[in-house]
Amino acid sequence: MSKIKFNVFDKGEYAIVEFELSEPITPEELKSIKPPNIVGKGVVLSGRGPIWLYGFLIHYYHPATFIATYDPRIGAVIVESHTPKHKVGDVINI
Amino acid sequence: MSKIKFNVFDKGEYAIVEFELSEPITPEELKSIKPPNIVGKGVVLSGRGPIWLYGFLIHYYHPATFIATYDPRIGAVIVESHTPKHKVGDVINI
Repeated sequence: MSKIKFNVFDKGEYAIVEFELSEPITPEELKSIKPPNIVGKGVVLSGRGPIWLYGFLIHYYHPATFIATYDPRIGAVIVESHTPKHKVGDVINI
Repeated sequence: MSKIKFNVFDKGEYAIVEFELSEPITPEELKSIKPPNIVGKGVVLSGRGPIWLYGFLIHYYHPATFIATYDPRIGAVIVESHTPKHKVGDVINI
């Protein structure tokens, strides 16, 4: 069974992709992770995990309309955008 | 003066791009960050900062041969690669 579980919350313009780790993962496990398929909208990543897991997911969702990472203290911070509606550094309150 | 300082260590096949924050940055400041220009090689990101700063940098260095993030406990974990020499999930000891 996979150590990583994804939950998707579709919010229309974007989907929140939340991950949960049942135990720490190793870099090797990046080779077999299958994140949920999100097409034609933004992706907000949320979850507690290593930076390299985030790095993997940010690259994986590169074709998304935009990508944000959820920071509990701030909100969803746009780190990459292909739409003029949301610019890098903007914050979405989700 | 910028709150973020970059140091580059050229290792031939890749460059280590290390950042230091003199104080916490805000998402808004992503709009004016100018990371060092690295061309034709891999990029290993290293530094203590928020996940959205890493997200920004990973997107910024998307054209690099590969991107890794340095995890002090593990090494440099490849999160994105455009070369068969290094695969996602591989670890480089830097």
